[in-house]
Amino acid sequence: MRKGEVMSSSSGTLFRVTTFGESHGRAVGAIVDGCPPRLPLSAADLQPQLDRRRPGQSPLTSARAEEDAVSILSGVDQGLTLGSPIALLIENTDTRPQDYASSAKGPRPSHADFTYRLKYGLSAQSGGGRASARETVARVAAGAVAEKFLHITHQVDIVAWVSAIGGIEAPAPSAHNFTRAQVDATAVRCPDPTAARQMSQAIVEAQKAGDSLGGIITCCCQNIPVGWGEPIFDKLDALLAQAMHSIPAVNGFEVGAGFSSARQRGPEHNDLFSAQSGRLVPTTNRDGGIQGGLSNGAPILFRVAFKPTASIAKEQQTVTYDGQPLSLKLTGRHDACVVPRAVPIVEAMAALVLADAALRA
Amino acid sequence: MRKGEVMSSSSGTLFRVTTFGESHGRAVGAIVDGCPPRLPLSAADLQPQLDRRRPGQSPLTSARAEEDAVSILSGVDQGLTLGSPIALLIENTDTRPQDYASSAKGPRPSHADFTYRLKYGLSAQSGGGRASARETVARVAAGAVAEKFLHITHQVDIVAWVSAIGGIEAPAPSAHNFTRAQVDATAVRCPDPTAARQMSQAIVEAQKAGDSLGGIITCCCQNIPVGWGEPIFDKLDALLAQAMHSIPAVNGFEVGAGFSSARQRGPEHNDLFSAQSGRLVPTTNRDGGIQGGLSNGAPILFRVAFKPTASIAKEQQTVTYDGQPLSLKLTGRHDACVVPRAVPIVEAMAALVLADAALRA
Amino acid sequence: MRKGEVMSSSSGTLFRVTTFGESHGRAVGAIVDGCPPRLPLSAADLQPQLDRRRPGQSPLTSARAEEDAVSILSGVDQGLTLGSPIALLIENTDTRPQDYASSAKGPRPSHADFTYRLKYGLSAQSGGGRASARETVARVAAGAVAEKFLHITHQVDIVAWVSAIGGIEAPAPSAHNFTRAQVDATAVRCPDPTAARQMSQAIVEAQKAGDSLGGIITCCCQNIPVGWGEPIFDKLDALLAQAMHSIPAVNGFEVGAGFSSARQRGPEHNDLFSAQSGRLVPTTNRDGGIQGGLSNGAPILFRVAFKPTASIAKEQQTVTYDGQPLSLKLTGRHDACVVPRAVPIVEAMAALVLADAALRA
Amino acid sequence: MRKGEVMSSSSGTLFRVTTFGESHGRAVGAIVDGCPPRLPLSAADLQPQLDRRRPGQSPLTSARAEEDAVSILSGVDQGLTLGSPIALLIENTDTRPQDYASSAKGPRPSHADFTYRLKYGLSAQSGGGRASARETVARVAAGAVAEKFLHITHQVDIVAWVSAIGGIEAPAPSAHNFTRAQVDATAVRCPDPTAARQMSQAIVEAQKAGDSLGGIITCCCQNIPVGWGEPIFDKLDALLAQAMHSIPAVNGFEVGAGFSSARQRGPEHNDLFSAQSGRLVPTTNRDGGIQGGLSNGAPILFRVAFKPTASIAKEQQTVTYDGQPLSLKLTGRHDACVVPRAVPIVEAMAALVLADAALRA
Repeated sequence: MRKGEVMSSSSGTLFRVTTFGESHGRAVGAIVDGCPPRLPLSAADLQPQLDRRRPGQSPLTSARAEEDAVSILSGVDQGLTLGSPIALLIENTDTRPQDYASSAKGPRPSHADFTYRLKYGLSAQSGGGRASARETVARVAAGAVAEKFLHITHQVDIVAWVSAIGGIEAPAPSAHNFTRAQVDATAVRCPDPTAARQMSQAIVEAQKAGDSLGGIITCCCQNIPVGWGEPIFDKLDALLAQAMHSIPAVNGFEVGAGFSSARQRGPEHNDLFSAQSGRLVPTTNRDGGIQGGLSNGAPILFRVAFKPTASIAKEQQTVTYDGQPLSLKLTGRHDACVVPRAVPIVEAMAALVLADAALRA
Repeated sequence: MRKGEVMSSSSGTLFRVTTFGESHGRAVGAIVDGCPPRLPLSAADLQPQLDRRRPGQSPLTSARAEEDAVSILSGVDQGLTLGSPIALLIENTDTRPQDYASSAKGPRPSHADFTYRLKYGLSAQSGGGRASARETVARVAAGAVAEKFLHITHQVDIVAWVSAIGGIEAPAPSAHNFTRAQVDATAVRCPDPTAARQMSQAIVEAQKAGDSLGGIITCCCQNIPVGWGEPIFDKLDALLAQAMHSIPAVNGFEVGAGFSSARQRGPEHNDLFSAQSGRLVPTTNRDGGIQGGLSNGAPILFRVAFKPTASIAKEQQTVTYDGQPLSLKLTGRHDACVVPRAVPIVEAMAALVLADAALRA
Repeated sequence: MRKGEVMSSSSGTLFRVTTFGESHGRAVGAIVDGCPPRLPLSAADLQPQLDRRRPGQSPLTSARAEEDAVSILSGVDQGLTLGSPIALLIENTDTRPQDYASSAKGPRPSHADFTYRLKYGLSAQSGGGRASARETVARVAAGAVAEKFLHITHQVDIVAWVSAIGGIEAPAPSAHNFTRAQVDATAVRCPDPTAARQMSQAIVEAQKAGDSLGGIITCCCQNIPVGWGEPIFDKLDALLAQAMHSIPAVNGFEVGAGFSSARQRGPEHNDLFSAQSGRLVPTTNRDGGIQGGLSNGAPILFRVAFKPTASIAKEQQTVTYDGQPLSLKLTGRHDACVVPRAVPIVEAMAALVLADAALRA
Repeated sequence: MRKGEVMSSSSGTLFRVTTFGESHGRAVGAIVDGCPPRLPLSAADLQPQLDRRRPGQSPLTSARAEEDAVSILSGVDQGLTLGSPIALLIENTDTRPQDYASSAKGPRPSHADFTYRLKYGLSAQSGGGRASARETVARVAAGAVAEKFLHITHQVDIVAWVSAIGGIEAPAPSAHNFTRAQVDATAVRCPDPTAARQMSQAIVEAQKAGDSLGGIITCCCQNIPVGWGEPIFDKLDALLAQAMHSIPAVNGFEVGAGFSSARQRGPEHNDLFSAQSGRLVPTTNRDGGIQGGLSNGAPILFRVAFKPTASIAKEQQTVTYDGQPLSLKLTGRHDACVVPRAVPIVEAMAALVLADAALRA
């Protein structure tokens, strides 16, 4: 045993979540520790987001057949939370470890196989590892608890959508107040119908070609009171940045004007204040709703970049663990583009960060 | 007292740093709790990075005259660390709270004034607040301790540089192994001489116009062993994302190919492995040295976007705290572009994240 | 929602445990987050300690019929730990919330009813609360994981026993190296046969009288390497003191000579060193194996005081929540003395503290 | 570097304290991170408790001449806290590392020398280490901040006193509401005049004989609202137990009836409730103000056992680090009995725990 082999699966300060479970083990789940008591909560509150993340929901997504039905094992009595830990369980029903035989000889490129094996001495490529995106089922379930709490106590509204896939970028919308129904109108979850059509087509073509695509998700959180977040290390955008980068395949995060603000001048960027019904509000939102690390009452707006799915059917020239040349063609059930299914994951991670900020605030 | 008023100024799990001090108070400083014993350390190890962050170091930077001389109050005896907390103190010598009178009536746009006042009931605009970039002096001092530890134990090498200012972007370098001397060859800290010249000129012009500019810093960390980071919530890129977004004025973070990976296809993005002297290494580095949240032995490469300085001399039409129209012209000593001085801050935050990862690994 | 209503059910820094589940809900369980990979582990390793804690194991204990069979839902594959969170589940099969009707009107004396109700707005008296000793099932399961880890990596041996019940105190043993088999030779778990007989009789009489008894458990941890623990706030005895006081009904903790050291003089108390096979060892153990907060290689020896069971059948004159006189006779299935069944709980909490200390050390 | 060498000097969840400084270094101090804003605070609020802990305050205590004057370096502006970290500094003025030459050859019995040296590879015996009771200066300063916060927001009143020294035990008082003035009426800080006289005499005699004495401190905390503490691992008594055991030389802790409750029967122990002015209150206080880990509104009452000072002038037969026989006679300035000076330390640690509980509640 070396210390370095230990891994932590917990996040949050007061509203804490711990996820557990391997992709090809018995079950995945989460413990939500720190949810306040006396909130109405049932499995029916959690299932819709799990269904949005579920494989097999459209022809664009992986064919793994998982019901992903969630059970609440503790922390709720007679439809109300008790304040005690909420244990959430989702059983795995369609595991196929045998699909991973081809990758047992060498590390899959741009995957966690290589680093897991060197750190933990374990094969993550069995699909049984924690690195699988199946771990995010538990995050979505826990995030739905956080969302329920935020909605009841502060009417917080969190909606994410796909704004780019491959090279196809949806035009900037005039407003960011989409509903989830609007987002779900297309299988790619892009509310711009023209872009959505092009994206769908691109995914289908990539799938046929054994190829994969990346993309960008935009997320908007409304009704956040002024003052959530901490001003030094735990700035609200810093915690969101960590949460989003903790999602598999994420390579970038930006808030408000983001990277484009690096090209702006002060007068172009600065959000001036005006008075509306006795309250000060910023008239523009280039800071994305966060100033000095604290929410300023404007919608919190951020974007998350996903790289293309690392698992591709196309042949790749890599090496075995012994350093011998290996021509790798991955089988198994993989999405050519994970971005549409990642929408509820982004919402879940945002909800977990905001619920913790609400309790700390 | 409401709970929400509390702020935390600590970061890290095993290698922990807490910063303290207000911009216009007696002193700023940091406690480094968790640095291993028996490492050679003296103030002379810390001063160079403080000097690189110091105001007044070039005509491009603020004229505040601070020596920023650091004292080590504890944790070091006879030139060696003791394993006990290292207290670092930097006195403030050139404070001018009176400069902030003009902004006492209304919140400065895109500053922390508004959110601080609503959350803490305090005026941050006196310059005495924690939101001032002066707080980063303490981070730079603590980061230099982390860097010394990383260098001695693992020969880790961290170098950041300016890759864009305003709209001027330096061409992508063929390699990322600059030295700090190469970076410091120009006052703007951009190792491309042509771009550096244009950037300098742009800053001088913005300064004259009472305007400000944003920019991008690229950072490369070399000699990181395989396996640093945690695979779920505390992925190494997630912790770096948080650390960078905790720096004032940062609006975006990306690792490896970052946002551009959203436009890539799998075969373009994937880092194939090859064998070199008996070890597997990725032949490209689009994942920026991190796979599945763990370092993969390749250089860790990331970019940080800074918005333009919020404090500008140009007149801004905003409102007072009472909602009355306010025409604001900010005086005081501000950098038209903070990005060159932020280079050692980015390095410091990277070092703090990596030192903690080293102890957890 | 007020913040104060939140409760935390987690403990530990690197080897972390979170328990969940209500006494009269569906299940209780624990997540062990931070257990190193590649350790052999199965449910069979955990069941013996759960059986030692189980109700109905002897005529001296509560008649609630729970099998307390533990399932491992995650974190173990092919008999080896994966390094990922280990989820442990124990279903509740014999719940009887109706038994608690009599205590719904007023708070049971010296119970958690009153404080829970005022803090959480919830009735803990339904037996559904977290205050029930049933929560300790989860600790025993998690502690058995910790014990396995400690045993494999360091041959650590943890054995606790009953040293006093009511006024009956077993004579101080000449050595503290009992085995669990020796401890379990009597139902009261006191290795002194004479005292054990008297204790058994005292419990039977108390039971008949509708009365209850307190007692003391002594615990000895062997083969702890020098240097576990932290020297300032997280001294090893401090962490053990917290862990033991977190067990329901515990009112006191002492290490080594404990309270009797307050009556000693320096030369009587001080543990002199001698050299044995090239290593320094203390020749006596009045410090209980811990000096300056760090283990010193001698057995860690501590004692834990339990108050008498608060739930008694004897009539008690108290008041309702409305302040009206209430004559309370508690029914339900309660132990007249919890101390024998608390032996594996003390061992479990010791193991959790030591496993965390091992990873931090 | 091995990981085990790291030490943590921080404590608390929301109201956090980190202490720093070595006994024979430049200074000792603390950072209080998480103290709410807008509380009146000045060094004059902190100095009285530092003076009560100071050496040289009476003929019974060590002759080290330290003013222990505290400076507030940050976190306070115009007499009010800012919510930001409060840095407290106390310079060391009378250091004498040479006094420790005699113990350089072998570990002092029942000291931290042996364990520190094996863990950190450092000589703690130079007096420069963190194991010195001088570290508690910083706790007393930080505790005084916590006390100010508790007093202003909740009128919390914390008073500790000496209840036993050597074998001399003060009779149980009829009430526990002493003032600090009453406690300080005698140099031994025992409010019972007869016992105080005997204790003083015993200390003087021990001092002459080159011997030392242990003792017991009782502490009473009044006006604690119902519901502070957490019900599972962070029970209020558990956190107090940890805090008290983190004080050097502490070997035992008990709350309410404590160890004597192990000899009680249910009806003797249980605190019945009665109604007083519309509120339920326990009519007795055998649980020491804490039930189910949460404060119940009654005074919190606990006792702390201190072992005799380990540093004694009397000759001790021990061994050198090389295992050679060593006859050790310790010189230096040590208290024959630390218990009277530990009274403000116990109060400080209680205040730190309660302030954190107040913020979490």
